[in-house]
Amino acid sequence: LDEAGYEVLDEDMCYELLAETSLGRVGVNVDGRPAIFPINFALVDRQVVFSTGLGTKLTGALSGAVVAFEADWADTASHAAWSVQGCGPAILVEPGSEVEVAARVKVHAVAPVPRRFLVKIRLSYVSGRRLGGPINPEP
Amino acid sequence: LDEAGYEVLDEDMCYELLAETSLGRVGVNVDGRPAIFPINFALVDRQVVFSTGLGTKLTGALSGAVVAFEADWADTASHAAWSVQGCGPAILVEPGSEVEVAARVKVHAVAPVPRRFLVKIRLSYVSGRRLGGPINPEP
Repeated sequence: LDEAGYEVLDEDMCYELLAETSLGRVGVNVDGRPAIFPINFALVDRQVVFSTGLGTKLTGALSGAVVAFEADWADTASHAAWSVQGCGPAILVEPGSEVEVAARVKVHAVAPVPRRFLVKIRLSYVSGRRLGGPINPEP
Repeated sequence: LDEAGYEVLDEDMCYELLAETSLGRVGVNVDGRPAIFPINFALVDRQVVFSTGLGTKLTGALSGAVVAFEADWADTASHAAWSVQGCGPAILVEPGSEVEVAARVKVHAVAPVPRRFLVKIRLSYVSGRRLGGPINPEP
């Protein structure tokens, strides 16, 4: 347990939770200010792949800096929760690459306008915490 | 609508959504790396107040830099979603202050170990997007 009373998750459990999740967040810099954007993502070879259109999220993610990533789930009624976070470099997924083919099947964007670009984050670490209850975020 | 097909929310609607929400995220720097942490928060006078213990989240938030904030909600079944984000300076809430008294009532930490510190973020802007469906994240 950590100092807050949460169970500390190992790397395999972090990726297991991320594999069951489709909504996460990416932290980037936009015009020198930090910004967090929601992302629809999927794991491909333990890389976070998300879809986006032209805009500040894409520009910020591809600025060359390391980006932050996070996903979480909480059920206040049962006091169950988990979170997984990490960071790493983000790069554009090559059209026609294996990652692109796999991600096009797995990433489901909720935006009404199709998202043209896929960005992958190669996480240099993952760190996770969990509190009781069921772990499945999207039963 | 923005370029992704989302409704762009005005400031009042952003704060209305945040007022109904208790789980958000804060983006800070930890040892030179960007990190996103989940937070249990409440709005007090349009400031985001969250509770935390001693640790990297507290240290990162109080490092003097502007921090990022985000909250979101999504229901994949009904294709309804919203997100609100912003950023601003974070400072420790003074024990005994009006903000502290109000926040102690409104902020409900899910961590098993009591969270000693309250941190407030004075948002310099908020920006929000929404897609169809009900807006209440915690009915």
